[in-house]
Amino acid sequence: MATLKDVAREAGLSVGTVSRVLNNRGYISEETRQRVSAAMEQLHYQPNAMARSLSKRSSSMIGVIVPSISHPYFAKVLSCLESAAHEENYQLLLFCSQGKVSREEEYVRVCSSNRVAGLVLCSGSVKTGKLRNFGFPVVAFERHLNEADAGVECNNYEGGELAARELIRAGCRKLMCISGIGEVSMPADVRREGFLDVCRTHPEVEVQEFFCSPEHLEDLNYFPELKRFLDEDPDADGIFAGSDMIGIQLMSELGRRGRRVPQDVRIVGYDDVNLAQMTNPQLTTIRQPVEEMARECIRIIVKAAGGQSIPSRTMFPVSLERRGSTELADCIIK
Amino acid sequence: MATLKDVAREAGLSVGTVSRVLNNRGYISEETRQRVSAAMEQLHYQPNAMARSLSKRSSSMIGVIVPSISHPYFAKVLSCLESAAHEENYQLLLFCSQGKVSREEEYVRVCSSNRVAGLVLCSGSVKTGKLRNFGFPVVAFERHLNEADAGVECNNYEGGELAARELIRAGCRKLMCISGIGEVSMPADVRREGFLDVCRTHPEVEVQEFFCSPEHLEDLNYFPELKRFLDEDPDADGIFAGSDMIGIQLMSELGRRGRRVPQDVRIVGYDDVNLAQMTNPQLTTIRQPVEEMARECIRIIVKAAGGQSIPSRTMFPVSLERRGSTELADCIIK
Repeated sequence: MATLKDVAREAGLSVGTVSRVLNNRGYISEETRQRVSAAMEQLHYQPNAMARSLSKRSSSMIGVIVPSISHPYFAKVLSCLESAAHEENYQLLLFCSQGKVSREEEYVRVCSSNRVAGLVLCSGSVKTGKLRNFGFPVVAFERHLNEADAGVECNNYEGGELAARELIRAGCRKLMCISGIGEVSMPADVRREGFLDVCRTHPEVEVQEFFCSPEHLEDLNYFPELKRFLDEDPDADGIFAGSDMIGIQLMSELGRRGRRVPQDVRIVGYDDVNLAQMTNPQLTTIRQPVEEMARECIRIIVKAAGGQSIPSRTMFPVSLERRGSTELADCIIK
Repeated sequence: MATLKDVAREAGLSVGTVSRVLNNRGYISEETRQRVSAAMEQLHYQPNAMARSLSKRSSSMIGVIVPSISHPYFAKVLSCLESAAHEENYQLLLFCSQGKVSREEEYVRVCSSNRVAGLVLCSGSVKTGKLRNFGFPVVAFERHLNEADAGVECNNYEGGELAARELIRAGCRKLMCISGIGEVSMPADVRREGFLDVCRTHPEVEVQEFFCSPEHLEDLNYFPELKRFLDEDPDADGIFAGSDMIGIQLMSELGRRGRRVPQDVRIVGYDDVNLAQMTNPQLTTIRQPVEEMARECIRIIVKAAGGQSIPSRTMFPVSLERRGSTELADCIIK
């Protein structure tokens, strides 16, 4: 098998230069890169990342644990994490916990065993004591984790406020607030508080609250619960859906009942997943800046790997994306 | 740092037994597992997967390259691959090429450098010669790759036939066939052939063909093209959408034009992504058995790692999922 020395000889360069090209360090001209690349190909040279990681005691891999991959929100998070990791020359080791604590704990061990540079935890029920002493930073993504070294989240309270203001602005008076509810407290729970606090300042507005079980992350089927909510509160004229997936299914179910969006009922979702723009009408939603949040997670891990101190909590603002589900004009123009 | 010996002493077991537990080899009682696990936790023992991989010359990682992560089809593929890999005690190293050949080639090198046990390529424009001599098997997923060691695909021709028969059965006479078209030939191209071959046997049926550019895998915005198709062929009464994402956006655009699905236009999608059941009406589609296809990819890599011979091409059947977009009764009952 060819060695680094062979590649250097073939390329007519020093071993140090070839090493700099492989590790992407310092300035390297395009011509030099080309020569190294050609020599590597010629000799079928494969740099051994594992051997290099072993000597550095940590690899260029970042672990990611999500509760679901096919859920459009987590698919978007993964996509942004992969892109940010690629920019920093890191790779993602992907794990799906299906929300099971035992799977999460197992995956944390596998990450440790693979000497990851850090772990982004988007699925967080891992208990106290399970995350310490692993020697790599754990960044919680939209999760409360006392055990995590850092947390990156969006301003969920503000998101709830924006949703309430949008529905009230559009003239809704009988509001419905649908939240997720789980055993573990989540930053997303605060959306509801922001929503209700704004409603309290508007005595002309009524609110009815409903809670979805958290078991739908994988199957994504909220229909049975949504049907029940709409049966119990059939004349709501404005609904904060808690997530875009709930919002999209709500529109579908309202359509079956002959209730028009936005003429009869207005809806605000949360997340701004790609599908929010594919429905008719398009879904008004609270946009999480997932790209920036993902980039921040990777940046924190890269900083920690470089021995720098890292922020323990980073919060990003959210914004309202007004579309056809709350705005009749938007719905007709499109 | 604790060693394997320390763990064995703490657990009161032999080093061989502890090693068998860690490598999941042979029969191990639940009690033994518990003792090893408790001792590992007690001593904060971290088995070093990298060192083990180095001695085995290949790791327990499987590389996956997809062109997009947030596309619901690829999110589903990834989800099924992760689940199948977990069953076999393998981990996924995730890469997104964004359809760029240079990224794919870079990722293949990174996989090689990390001594992956194999690579599942769901994004395939890598050119001849780039995949050989890496020493790990490459499995193409729904891609033609002369360079791959194995290919796993679904019966796309049959899928096209099923779609045509479904629309004709439902009484459609002015059909539209929307296909993707790219520089690289894909198994999915054959869907169109199956569709057209069935139409040819029905002289009472007309077909108009349209092609979507392949650039929408990331942004998923097919609307501008779909608007053009519907402007050019405004009275089609049955549409084969080529993919569910196209089908869902088509329903949305038809809604804006006041054309009812399925009363005025019937639609058949392809893939059966989770969203196909969230629209109103739900989308009739050709179901790819993605779970089975993903499991087969992982099985092939595990077989190859064990020195067994592997099938070069595996094709899975598809099935029609009849829903409200082609069946008025289904649409009303739901």
